[in-house]
Amino acid sequence: MNTFLPAGYRYAGVRAGINPSSDKSKKDLALIISGVPAVAAGVFTKNRVKAAPVLLCKRRINNKISAIVVNSGNANACTGQQGFDDAVRMGRTLAELLDVPETRTLVCSTGTIGVPMPVKVIDAGIRDAVTKLAPDSADDVASAIMTTDTKPKQVTRTFNIGGRQITVHGLAKGSGMISPNMATMLAFILTDAAVDRPALKSCLKDAVDLSFNRVTVDGDMSTNDTVIALANGLADNKPLRPGAPGWKAFQTAIREVTLELALMIAADGEGATKLVTVIVRGAASPKDAQLAAKSVANSLLVKTAWYGSDPNWGRVMAALGYSGAKIQPDRVSISYNDLCVVRNGISANAPIKRFSEIIEHPKFTIEISLGLGKNETTVYSCDISHEYVNLNASYMT
Amino acid sequence: MNTFLPAGYRYAGVRAGINPSSDKSKKDLALIISGVPAVAAGVFTKNRVKAAPVLLCKRRINNKISAIVVNSGNANACTGQQGFDDAVRMGRTLAELLDVPETRTLVCSTGTIGVPMPVKVIDAGIRDAVTKLAPDSADDVASAIMTTDTKPKQVTRTFNIGGRQITVHGLAKGSGMISPNMATMLAFILTDAAVDRPALKSCLKDAVDLSFNRVTVDGDMSTNDTVIALANGLADNKPLRPGAPGWKAFQTAIREVTLELALMIAADGEGATKLVTVIVRGAASPKDAQLAAKSVANSLLVKTAWYGSDPNWGRVMAALGYSGAKIQPDRVSISYNDLCVVRNGISANAPIKRFSEIIEHPKFTIEISLGLGKNETTVYSCDISHEYVNLNASYMT
Repeated sequence: MNTFLPAGYRYAGVRAGINPSSDKSKKDLALIISGVPAVAAGVFTKNRVKAAPVLLCKRRINNKISAIVVNSGNANACTGQQGFDDAVRMGRTLAELLDVPETRTLVCSTGTIGVPMPVKVIDAGIRDAVTKLAPDSADDVASAIMTTDTKPKQVTRTFNIGGRQITVHGLAKGSGMISPNMATMLAFILTDAAVDRPALKSCLKDAVDLSFNRVTVDGDMSTNDTVIALANGLADNKPLRPGAPGWKAFQTAIREVTLELALMIAADGEGATKLVTVIVRGAASPKDAQLAAKSVANSLLVKTAWYGSDPNWGRVMAALGYSGAKIQPDRVSISYNDLCVVRNGISANAPIKRFSEIIEHPKFTIEISLGLGKNETTVYSCDISHEYVNLNASYMT
Repeated sequence: MNTFLPAGYRYAGVRAGINPSSDKSKKDLALIISGVPAVAAGVFTKNRVKAAPVLLCKRRINNKISAIVVNSGNANACTGQQGFDDAVRMGRTLAELLDVPETRTLVCSTGTIGVPMPVKVIDAGIRDAVTKLAPDSADDVASAIMTTDTKPKQVTRTFNIGGRQITVHGLAKGSGMISPNMATMLAFILTDAAVDRPALKSCLKDAVDLSFNRVTVDGDMSTNDTVIALANGLADNKPLRPGAPGWKAFQTAIREVTLELALMIAADGEGATKLVTVIVRGAASPKDAQLAAKSVANSLLVKTAWYGSDPNWGRVMAALGYSGAKIQPDRVSISYNDLCVVRNGISANAPIKRFSEIIEHPKFTIEISLGLGKNETTVYSCDISHEYVNLNASYMT
């Protein structure tokens, strides 16, 4: 992939051998370095069981950041004080090699839960990776952070502010496992824009709510989910903040990059064959819209019906009914793409052939109208396939 | 199955041909008749989208009941006013044939959602079934109400009160589909005891909370779930109520029958290969215990790990962490049967071989201690297999 990258970053991705049972050619350790300390912002998992690197990042995210070390193959979660010390050690090793304060490093991990980190393997991997840092090696990072992802995920946007070209570059990994353990979503948004820290923080939060927080693969929330944004200011624009020239363009770029990465994650969900957009309109409250959309998007019966191309709107009605959202069955309408299949809670007698054709596609939209108010939301989901069961049932050998 | 049955009931189960695409030898219409009008109690789905027969039963459950007609193959859900009229008609047809008031009939359905009832087929089936009513045909009812269940489910208990023998007989169908549609749980608890209506109602509610409400197959809640208890008084005991002689024995019998049926349902979940009991202790509140247990029992990642015999406690920790229950990771302990695998939130270094042996069994228990209080609960669950995806992805042909 030939991505256009922001100024001032260097990248490396290497094979350290963190999980000895995984593919022996798979890169599993990555570095992202900003030559100039960058303003940072982060959004982290709401799971009350947080991996050690999440706890460490939360402590350091308000510092200026010079370097991020990321590994796949071990989540460093449920590893206690030793796990936290190991995460600190990873940052310290990198800081010493780069000669930056260790408080300017961040650490992210994804992989198996509950297994102590192989610290020597990781130390060696960091030393190796530092020798390979290059401004055009972002592809190696995108590969090294993958677990069961089938494709690396990168997106860029460029735009101009007062004659300065600004680049926003995103890298992500989605739901997946390297050995059978907790799926983890990681994303890194890198830009050469100059941005005020509070502005970056609110911009990232807003973009995550509109993108990653609207993706559901299996409804399970990881101990390691992390989204980090760095802005190193090398584009030399006047610092961006709400209301300033270029702010809207910046906000749009961040939103577009995160949304595109989120859709890549949904489409590449474990074993997924279909990307389904679920839109709920006419909800009595914003919370009702969320409850209804997530209930449909997470229902195992709905997701297996998508997999089987089954024109089965009854399962959608049932999922709405138990969602906890305010529902009046005789006000509900449901369309698949532009085909209305339910009107006022009962069959609209849509031609079964057209209905079947729509849900055989690898991408379609379900639009649900609750007829109770003006609130709406959109959620991105995928089907549950035999391959999902394969990937998640197999033992770690 | 040679069950000992309560006095005064007659049963029939026939093939009506309600879903023409299903197995041509499968019985799909059943009658349960009490010669003496019985005191009734019911517990119904909390789904806001309720099938027509659920709406009808809720109206009639406080009447004395003489007859129940049950069909599989069509749920009569999301069928609007026509569906309600069809349910009324089923009860009326039966009432006329038996010469009882139609308000003394109940109607239950399970099967495909959103398809109009084939009323002529059902009428003919009811007429046929009435000619076959017999006091020893309960097996036919147990078969006729099945959808994707692999086994019929019946349980009986007998006990004495003041020299009178009392029998409690339960029939149930579990999560399953006849053509690809919403799973439905139906259960009928029949007894010849004399019971006060309020006492029967509270006894049934209590038993359902301890049994059916603790079973989770896929987390999806049906539009048709119904549990009905009838007590016709033919055992001629002094009417049972709390505090009366025999009340405890009656309550125990109802609890045992419903729990045994519930465990049969969990073990026979669609494609299930393992029955897993999840016990949560030490929760800060009763609600926290429920949230934690249901989160673990419903997690797709946990359930696929059970299927794959994967000794993967990390997924249990993660499910606890996002359950919404109050959790302090460093106070959590987890045991599989008697093997402690997590102590204070980190690996207890249990021998992996013993751990693997336990979860390869078709039945095991996960006991979670949260260390935050004195509240506990138990939930019965099963794994998610390839066969689950097969059953729920296939199109209705």
